[in-house]
Amino acid sequence: MTELPAFHARIEPEWIDYNGHLRDAYYGLILSLAIDDVMDNLGLDAASRQRTQCTLYTLELHLNYLHEVKNTDELQVTTAILDADAKRILAGCRLSCPRLADPVATGEVMLLHVHQGEKPSSVSFPADIETKLVLLKLPADAATTWGPGSRKMEIKRRPST
Amino acid sequence: MTELPAFHARIEPEWIDYNGHLRDAYYGLILSLAIDDVMDNLGLDAASRQRTQCTLYTLELHLNYLHEVKNTDELQVTTAILDADAKRILAGCRLSCPRLADPVATGEVMLLHVHQGEKPSSVSFPADIETKLVLLKLPADAATTWGPGSRKMEIKRRPST
Repeated sequence: MTELPAFHARIEPEWIDYNGHLRDAYYGLILSLAIDDVMDNLGLDAASRQRTQCTLYTLELHLNYLHEVKNTDELQVTTAILDADAKRILAGCRLSCPRLADPVATGEVMLLHVHQGEKPSSVSFPADIETKLVLLKLPADAATTWGPGSRKMEIKRRPST
Repeated sequence: MTELPAFHARIEPEWIDYNGHLRDAYYGLILSLAIDDVMDNLGLDAASRQRTQCTLYTLELHLNYLHEVKNTDELQVTTAILDADAKRILAGCRLSCPRLADPVATGEVMLLHVHQGEKPSSVSFPADIETKLVLLKLPADAATTWGPGSRKMEIKRRPST
């Protein structure tokens, strides 16, 4: 596997807010469900979680909202592995819908491999998962230009003349 | 008003995931509901949205997940106005629960004031809202040290020796 399969999401009616479009938080839920699908594809599925008591915790998330999404839209999420080490994955998710050429949102999420016991603690990925991550990881130049990604958010002002 | 009132959230049972704690996306929903409350407090409430066709759109969001949240926890969100200009607000949200001294999560959100007509377009805040934002805005030094806030996410590696 050198690429993760796309995840398809159906928009529930209660996800539409008073502005008549998908509430910001539900872009995050769709991304979260897409990451569950990535876990299944990596082999970190329910059976594995049960057997090993290991799972992924989300440490950090950055979302860029690029287009409004309507209740009639169908969303697709493609996920790239931007980086990974022995315990962590930096994943990049692109949310798109058929009526628009550009993504409707992009997200970056930092995930940590955790053993859930009495006290949760980070642990290294098993060798087979690490091998999969090495194969999936984007080349450094592609990871650098993936985006728009996470950044320091600020209101930039035009210099006064 | 020089400070926004705290927002209290009740955790719904379906927000708990297979890891036995609050799913990452629902931290985002709680933050989104807290921002609705901020809008009410600023005067950008349902009656105003109906009258003016103006609302806030979310442009960007960064969340830091700091502690697990259980289904028995009660969450409180305090929001600070980190920055604002004629059309934008950069808000900082701190999610906390009574059993922990530290926040369980922090979030930064960039909001844009938009007129929803045939084609949504950004517009300046009315004068009364702008005045409220000036009063609420944190001093620059407090805004700088507010955090952990948004940033470029990366997996840092120890230099090899």
